[in-house]
Formats: sequence, C-alpha cells, structure tokens
Amino acid sequence: MSPIPGLQRVGLLGGGVIGGGWAARFLLNGVDVLLYDPDPEAPRKVGEIIAGARRAYSKLTMAPWPAEGTLTFVSTPEAAVVGVDFVQESAPERLDLKRKILGAASAAADPGVVFGSSTSGLLPTEIQQGMTHPERLVVGHPFNPVYMLPLVEICGGNATSEATKARAAEVYSSIGMRPLVLRKEIDGFVADRLLEALWREALWLVNDGIATTEQIDDAVRFGAGLRWSFMGTFLVYRIAGGEAGMRHFMAQFGPSLKWPWTKLMDVPELDDVLLEKIVGQSDDQANGVGIRELEALRDDCLVAVMQGLRAVDDGAGYGAGTVLAQYEKALFDRAAVPAVVDDSAAEVAGPLRTHSTRIPTDWVDYNGHTNDSRYAQLSCDAADAFLRLIGMDAAYLRGGHSWFTAESHISYLAQSKAGDAVHVTTQVLHHDAKRLHVFNRMYLTGRDGADDTLMATGEHMYLHVDTEIGKSVPAPQNMQDRIVAIADRQAGLDRPPQAGRYVGAPRS
Amino acid sequence: MSPIPGLQRVGLLGGGVIGGGWAARFLLNGVDVLLYDPDPEAPRKVGEIIAGARRAYSKLTMAPWPAEGTLTFVSTPEAAVVGVDFVQESAPERLDLKRKILGAASAAADPGVVFGSSTSGLLPTEIQQGMTHPERLVVGHPFNPVYMLPLVEICGGNATSEATKARAAEVYSSIGMRPLVLRKEIDGFVADRLLEALWREALWLVNDGIATTEQIDDAVRFGAGLRWSFMGTFLVYRIAGGEAGMRHFMAQFGPSLKWPWTKLMDVPELDDVLLEKIVGQSDDQANGVGIRELEALRDDCLVAVMQGLRAVDDGAGYGAGTVLAQYEKALFDRAAVPAVVDDSAAEVAGPLRTHSTRIPTDWVDYNGHTNDSRYAQLSCDAADAFLRLIGMDAAYLRGGHSWFTAESHISYLAQSKAGDAVHVTTQVLHHDAKRLHVFNRMYLTGRDGADDTLMATGEHMYLHVDTEIGKSVPAPQNMQDRIVAIADRQAGLDRPPQAGRYVGAPRS
Repeated sequence: MSPIPGLQRVGLLGGGVIGGGWAARFLLNGVDVLLYDPDPEAPRKVGEIIAGARRAYSKLTMAPWPAEGTLTFVSTPEAAVVGVDFVQESAPERLDLKRKILGAASAAADPGVVFGSSTSGLLPTEIQQGMTHPERLVVGHPFNPVYMLPLVEICGGNATSEATKARAAEVYSSIGMRPLVLRKEIDGFVADRLLEALWREALWLVNDGIATTEQIDDAVRFGAGLRWSFMGTFLVYRIAGGEAGMRHFMAQFGPSLKWPWTKLMDVPELDDVLLEKIVGQSDDQANGVGIRELEALRDDCLVAVMQGLRAVDDGAGYGAGTVLAQYEKALFDRAAVPAVVDDSAAEVAGPLRTHSTRIPTDWVDYNGHTNDSRYAQLSCDAADAFLRLIGMDAAYLRGGHSWFTAESHISYLAQSKAGDAVHVTTQVLHHDAKRLHVFNRMYLTGRDGADDTLMATGEHMYLHVDTEIGKSVPAPQNMQDRIVAIADRQAGLDRPPQAGRYVGAPRS
Repeated sequence: MSPIPGLQRVGLLGGGVIGGGWAARFLLNGVDVLLYDPDPEAPRKVGEIIAGARRAYSKLTMAPWPAEGTLTFVSTPEAAVVGVDFVQESAPERLDLKRKILGAASAAADPGVVFGSSTSGLLPTEIQQGMTHPERLVVGHPFNPVYMLPLVEICGGNATSEATKARAAEVYSSIGMRPLVLRKEIDGFVADRLLEALWREALWLVNDGIATTEQIDDAVRFGAGLRWSFMGTFLVYRIAGGEAGMRHFMAQFGPSLKWPWTKLMDVPELDDVLLEKIVGQSDDQANGVGIRELEALRDDCLVAVMQGLRAVDDGAGYGAGTVLAQYEKALFDRAAVPAVVDDSAAEVAGPLRTHSTRIPTDWVDYNGHTNDSRYAQLSCDAADAFLRLIGMDAAYLRGGHSWFTAESHISYLAQSKAGDAVHVTTQVLHHDAKRLHVFNRMYLTGRDGADDTLMATGEHMYLHVDTEIGKSVPAPQNMQDRIVAIADRQAGLDRPPQAGRYVGAPRS
C-alpha cells in the first residue's frame, strides 16, 4: 500500500540503466511497479540497480522509508499499464520503437493516465504521434543514477496538455525529484545541451592531445564542478563579478567570448584512432576498478554531497540539499500512519515489534562486527518508531513539541555482522505526563523459523518538551492516551533483567 | 614563522578578487605576504576577502591551523618581491600590463624565485617575454574562490624550465591545492575551455528564450553538477555505459554528437538586448540577496561538499575530499603539539582529552540536532582513542585479543548541530586485569576562548577477551601497566555525578 496518495502503482516500459533506476526510485518510495522489458536479462540487471539503490538509500536519510513496493515483470507493453496511476517509458532512443510501444500501451491504459518519456534526444511532439490520447505524453528526462539525482526535465509536445505537465511534476516531486518545466520544446532540452557542449570540447582536448581523460575530469572535479553541485554558472559568475555584480562580469569577460578558446566550429571525427584513445585513457583512469564498485563510490559521494548541502544555512539546506530536506519532511508526513507498526500493533500484549532492518555495511568495525554505537542507533531507531506510533508526526513536531532523550543504557550480549537481519521490540517500563521510560530488546532474527537471539538491550528515558521554551511540559492528552493503552496491555510483562542496571552492576 | 619549509614569504602582484584570494590562502597557511596593487581600495577589498576566508576555514577542518602570516601592502612591484620565496601575479588580463609589472618585479627578485601568473586568457610564452630569467615564469591558473577551490592549472611557456613547474606545483600543494600540470600550451588551458563551451551554450539558451538564467542554473545543480563535484565527464560516462564500459557508451551516444543539439557554430551577439536580459534575469534569481551573503553561502556549500567527500570510502575520501584529507594530515604533521594524544598525555593528571572532531552533516536529525545515537558514537570513538593510547594497535589485534564493550550509559545534557566543534575527555573509574571502566565527558568546544559546554556523558565497561576462544582473559601486562599509570594520575579526581546512574535514577 503506497503511502503516496494517488500513486499506488506505476507501469515502466523499458528496464535498462534508466528504466531500472526508475524502478528503484518508485519501489523504494513504496510504489508498486509493473515492468515491461523484452531483454531476458532485465530481471537480473534491474535487481542489481535496486540493490545499489537500497544501499544508497540506507545512508541517505534517517527519515522513515515506507515498505518497499512490489516489482512484477510483465511480457507486453499492454500488461504494464493495467490499473496503473502513471507510466514511464525508457525504451532505446529510436523513434519507431518508442512510437510502437507507446501506441500499444496507451491503447490499453485508462485514458487519464499520464505517460512520461525518459528520452534525452527525441522531441515529445514526435514521440506522441500515434498514441491514444497523445495529450497525456510528456517528456520526463531524468539523469543517471535516476534513484539519486533530483533533476527531471519536463517538456511537452504540441499536443501535450497543461494538466499532463502538472501531473508529471506532481508524480516526480512525490518521489523526491526536482522537476524543471521547460518553456519551449527544443532538441536536447536544456541540461543535455549544456553537457553536450562541454563534452564536445572535452573530445577535442583528447583528440588534440592537450589533456588525457583523467586530466580533463580533474579539471572539472577539483574546480568548477565543486561549485556546480550547488550553484549554476550564472550565479557563480554573478559572484565573480564582485560588488558590481552581473553587469560588471559581462563587461569584463564578455569580450573573451570572441577569443579563440574553444573549438566550437566543428565536431571531432569519432574515428577509430580517437575512439581507441578515449577507451584506453578511460581504462587507465579506472585502474581496474569495476563498474559496481565505481557505482557504489559514486552513490556514496552523491549521498555525502546532498547531505552536506542539506545541512547548510542552519539546516534550511541549499540546492539539492533543500530538495533532500523537503523530501525527508514528506517521508515523515507520510509515515504519520507509522510505516513500521500500525494501530493493530497496540492490541498486542507482548513487547511491540517496532523496527526491523539489516545491518548496513558501513556499521561494521575493522574487526567485522557491528560497531558498539550502532546498537545505540538501532535502539534509537526503534524508539523513534515507537514515538511515531504514539503520534509523533510532522504536524505534532511543527507544533513545537518533541520527546528529548535524557539518558540511554545499552547492554551488549552477542555480536552481529553486516547483512544480519535484526529486529527490535519495545516495552514501556514507566510513564507519566512528561516522561516515558522504554526498554528495547535487539534480536538477531532467526532464519527459517529458528529462534531469535537477543544481542543487545537498550533502555531509554524520554522527556516531553516544548522546543520553543526548552522546558519539559505534559504530552498532549491523545498521545498520553496511546501510551496508556500500550502500557496497560504490557502491564503483566516481567521486568527485564537488564533494566535499571548501572554500568558495573553485578550480572543478575 | 611559516610552518611550510622554504615558504616563509610570498610576493603578490595584484589584489583583486583573485589576488585577494591568493593573499587569504597564503596568509591562513602561515605565510607572510607582500602585496602590490595600485588601487587605493585594495586594502579594504583584500581585507574583506580574508575575512570571508577566515570564516570558511574555521568550518573547513578541525586540523590545527598555523598562526596567520602578516600582510604588508607595498607601493611598487619591485618592493613586493624583496626576500620572497615565490611570486604570484594576478594583474588585469592585459598583456602589456602584465609584461610591464613582471619585467620590473623579475629584475628586482632573486634569480631563483619562481613566478606564477593567474592569467586565464594569456599564454605563458607571451607573458614571459621581457622578464629577467623568463624560464621561471609559469602560469598557475586558480579558480574562484582561490582560498577554497583546490584546482590550479600549471602551464609552462616556450622558455619555462621543468624545475619551475615542479617548484610551482610544490608551492601550490603545500597550501592545500591540487595542481594539474598541462602537457601543452593552449589558449584557455583546459578548465576554461570546458567552462567556456558550457557558458556559450548557456548564453544561446537565454538569447533564444528557451530558459532563464535560473532554469539553466537549476539544470546544472540538480543534475550533472552534483556528479561533477567528485567525478568528471569521462568517468561519469564510463559508468553510464554500464557493464560494457566506455566503448559501449561511445557506441551508444557517439552518434548524438552529430545531432543538432548545440549551437556550437557561432557566438551570440552580446548586444544590449541580450545583456539586459541576462542582467535582469540574474537580478531576479538573486532576489535581493547581496554579494557577501552569496559568497558566504557559496563557501558554506563548498565546505559541506568537501567535508562530505572527505568522509566517503571509509574515511579515505574521494576527489576533493582526498585533497582535504591529505591537507589535514599535513596540517597535523606541521603542528608541533600532538593532534590527539601521545605518550606525554599520560602525564596529565586530569581527564585525558582523547578525541576532537566536528559533528558531521549526516549525524543530524530532521530537526537539525545531532541524533541521540551519535553521542554514543562520539563516546565510542573517544574510547577507541583511549584504547589505542594504552596499546591497542594492529599487532595487538592480530594477536587475537580485543576489548569488547559490555555496557554503555549515555546521559544527554545539551544539544549540538552539524559543524559544531566538539571534544571528549576520558577518566578511568575502575580497572582490573580483565575489566576497564571509563567515563567520557563530551563537550561543545568553546569558540575563541569561550568556555566549553558539557553536552553529554558516556560511561562504558570493557572486557578484555581472547577473540579465538571468545572468553575474557587478562590484558597483556604492558597494557595493564599503561592503564595503571593513567589511573594513578587520575586517582584524585572526583567521581562524576553521572557515573553509576541507572536509567530513571533521580538527578543528583
């Protein structure tokens, strides 16, 4: 059940690098996916992309991810659009092929369903010809990796309706992207025209032996590329103009446009000599590091850059950091009905199962075991889930209230390692209007019906505070009521032996 | 007294945006600066740039900065090169002017002193004509802001010696930059050719009304620009090629070079109409935010991006993150006082200062505060540093021994947020042959001599184990001796009020 209103299920036409990236982004946002791709290898390839996305998303945010959607491979374009709320086409860049697939799929789809095309090189006016209801086709051009980069260019064709563009923007925004709606239909849209201009120049530099592929990459990533991750060329140049601003910059640097700096007049012949040169230099540059490793490194860097940009401006974020901050807010909002536990959980008399996950690879020490502090994180994540269960949603937080942790006690009982399935249960030990005292048991989840193993316990005291005045205040009555409901059902449980321990107390 | 061997004092010719950036970078690296600029406003302008750099550097790293160098304004080019170890020229981009200034300065300088020119548009072969010892002139082309961006392009002219290029690379590296030595002399070097190609295309897009300056900036910073902060175009495209790599990418996307995507054939006429359009759109985009505020925002973003990239790959860093990591290591090496702890620290009677860091951007919650579990991590990191201090090194670990955490107790006293400087002290509460009981105090480090604020405490019990048999065993005698030495010196310390607490214990 997707947490995004009006986006329960999408149909994907094509499951290559781009289509697989869309699959990952929709699935990890809790949306079910029907995917058509005639390549028999598609399930494996898409599966690898989704695995990469899971890894990256586990690092991207501490906001609550919804339960993953389900992925179903289908054997025809028509089958991919049955009962879907949106369709994204990512077939190879051949007009005849796209028209054929979109023609078949659009005839089978409900008339109101919007179609996005991932094309980077074809015009929507041409693509939409032959579709049933061509007004619902819009280009939604993403960037690789689709599950990480926020940008998606929206470009309508002659037949495209305004409502179609608005719906596409809404869908893309809801899965954490930043739509850029173009004013005119144009070859290459906007971003690829800019990329292509730089790329052609780069090819000239290699062709003429001025620089290697690695030097060209370095010339970008140690300089202008760092700026481009948060400000574009125009704003950067405005700043370079100093106090006098953009007019001064244009006056100062405008004339250099006439200088013979760039070989814009022509395109280098991509003959075998140039091709071998590029391929060989690229191999040297990669130095034997494989594509999966490079992808993981790229994703780690994107996570780091976007998280970094989220923290600037006192947490308001900037550029892609603002996109991430807003996305996290939306994830919290949608988790208002808790993602991990639901109301029925409050009916359970035993400790509540509040959190389930796998130990991520970056939680592991030099010795291969989960780092001590990650047990604290696991316990805190479970406590967060419990707080959401009793009503800590975005509206509540905006109201200036929160539960602050006063103290935590972790007892370590068994080791775990990367990839282990683990889960946490929560027991209320004590509560009053301002305080909540919980006890978490962290388990290695038994495989195939085997018993779970208790690997650590976490005991936490929370104080209910008014964040404006920074003082503890009673929790809202409906929140207190939910705590009472759970605590009453747990009243008959034994007190855990690790509860109330101080560090160094004798083991009971 | 500069901490960089052979770089006590530099001469700067020109103090605009670029020259002022060089002044800031050299000064904050502890190098004295003589600066010549005929503009009577230069001291004010340079002072503002240095103030901005100080602000950014205070956030960039916890590594120990050296004492700032001294800045002296002089009234002639000749006076700027007296007794200096290096000269950087950043005069306006006019060949006659540069030749005149460099001619005068080179005649007055010691013959072995290397001259770097910041030019982005003139060739070193032309610039060096008329110099005394022209073989010592090299282009060292930086990027704005010079005190932040690592890239500097090194390009020699016909007369330039190899020793000159090597010396320039050494100087730039020593102040935290990443030199890129070009193979051939070429107009626009490498980076500006790439930037210019993108810039011309951007001007066309504005000229033709396809997109506004803001949309063009967004098309970069929400997409390819994020990747460009750590990987250049060639490596990005290699990854886009998927398992088949660069050859596949070229085969797939090579033909699109022939498509009419980019208006490379011509340069838009920069007439009043286009100029007004760009200036107006740029004003809209800036929305009244002034240049100083934009500069601070830019620098904050650069800090965040570089720090983020430093943390990837298990702390090895990537791209500009590796440059920062290596720079920090050099700063630590150059600092006379040990960075964290060394043997002499065991002589200290108070709690040992075991760990110093800044709150990383991915430690903060949706509400902007450091997540609970990260205090546990901070305390564990300090405990790890303590264990290293008592002899837990690689040889010890290979021997099949380790200290396992039995339990941890964290008390939360104050909040912190991303970028806050923090440090941790460690006090031994109890120890025997198999057990170690420590108490950590986590502080917000006071700025500019202000008091530190206690923000959390962590209490930990460690057991010494034989990892082969999984049982606790006595620690090696030399390790026990070091614990005793520290504990004896701390024997007179008061027991911390948070020690021995159980969750829910009344506050003392």
